Amino acid sequence: MKLSILLFDGFTALDIVGGYEVLARLPGVQTSFVADRSGVVAADTRRLGMVAYETYESAAQTDILYVPGGPGVVTALADPRLLDYIARAHAAATWTLGICNGVALLGAAGLIAGKTVTTNWSWRERVAAYGADVLPARYHRDGNLVTGAGVSASIDAGLFLAGLIGGEGLARALQLGIEYYPAPPFGGSSPDEAPEEIKAMIRAYETSPAAEAVMQAKPPFPAP
Amino acid sequence: MKLSILLFDGFTALDIVGGYEVLARLPGVQTSFVADRSGVVAADTRRLGMVAYETYESAAQTDILYVPGGPGVVTALADPRLLDYIARAHAAATWTLGICNGVALLGAAGLIAGKTVTTNWSWRERVAAYGADVLPARYHRDGNLVTGAGVSASIDAGLFLAGLIGGEGLARALQLGIEYYPAPPFGGSSPDEAPEEIKAMIRAYETSPAAEAVMQAKPPFPAP
Repeated sequence: MKLSILLFDGFTALDIVGGYEVLARLPGVQTSFVADRSGVVAADTRRLGMVAYETYESAAQTDILYVPGGPGVVTALADPRLLDYIARAHAAATWTLGICNGVALLGAAGLIAGKTVTTNWSWRERVAAYGADVLPARYHRDGNLVTGAGVSASIDAGLFLAGLIGGEGLARALQLGIEYYPAPPFGGSSPDEAPEEIKAMIRAYETSPAAEAVMQAKPPFPAP
Repeated sequence: MKLSILLFDGFTALDIVGGYEVLARLPGVQTSFVADRSGVVAADTRRLGMVAYETYESAAQTDILYVPGGPGVVTALADPRLLDYIARAHAAATWTLGICNGVALLGAAGLIAGKTVTTNWSWRERVAAYGADVLPARYHRDGNLVTGAGVSASIDAGLFLAGLIGGEGLARALQLGIEYYPAPPFGGSSPDEAPEEIKAMIRAYETSPAAEAVMQAKPPFPAP
């Protein structure tokens, strides 16, 4: 069973690693990192680089397609080759997993119209614009499409999908393997219950010159 | 403020990325990935590669030292240059963060004797052998040493440390930024309450030929 994880410039690392850490450990799964070409791809902080070694061509046939999010989604939404890869790989795949605002990439690839999905709390309206019904859920399944909320929700969504593929016993073992017994130091209610001033702070940062400057910084490693 | 994240062959990616995703976003933090030499380092699955671009020499002076764990710890424990780097960087650092069985590396570097720490549930006895009092906690602070339990606990420990450095308001914003409102699909009590047969399954896997075969596999990318 082939798991193909899509990398693009400006991905958020935890969108990937939370689900990867679970799904890559399913017996029989062969994990690959896929991008438009082989090489190092820079995460949104520009300080973390991850290696892609399969291309849209070599990873066209996959059993699980994994699409993360990140600030780089804004640019990726205008990349027809990336969107075409998502559409083609999804058509051939048994499961597609979209995390955070990566669900918008699924939308732009034409995969979520008429479906029910979840996404990052700050991207709900933009994802709904692709014709999806957006739930404020941590993870959600609609047919062969599993979606997760923001960033760290990749763990919960990955475990949920691992349970669908390998059964609950195996998923419980994987959960213990990654010791997922969360104890958020600052409460764990829900983004919808977070104070408005904290939400406003994050929304303001996302579109700020400071955030833009981070994304424009040159990574300390060679990346396309 | 410089954050130096140590990479070594066979690290567990979520041990790093959970805490990185929070700490790298603290205002004024400059994050670096450090190894014995620059280049790609392979994670424990052999399928994920992450880039190191600072060395033990260039990253000797750091404000936050971040030591992850993984199956590669077994080999790293016998690497005197790596242990020496940990000891030197810790001596100069304001904070040291150890995650999972990476806490054993802190022990072998002579940093935890007489201290109270936490670690991965399956490494408690081995970590205690370095003279530490080991708690079954998700994260713990003893002086300038913050330790986290297994793998995904890097998120909780990272948020806790972010709160110590930047204050609770900022840490709450970071928690919302990574949307850390966990909803483990298969319950979230504690590893100590997990059924013995699941714990036994994981302990058996960790020392199995199958696990050894994974670690012996050649990564699909050039790695030292």
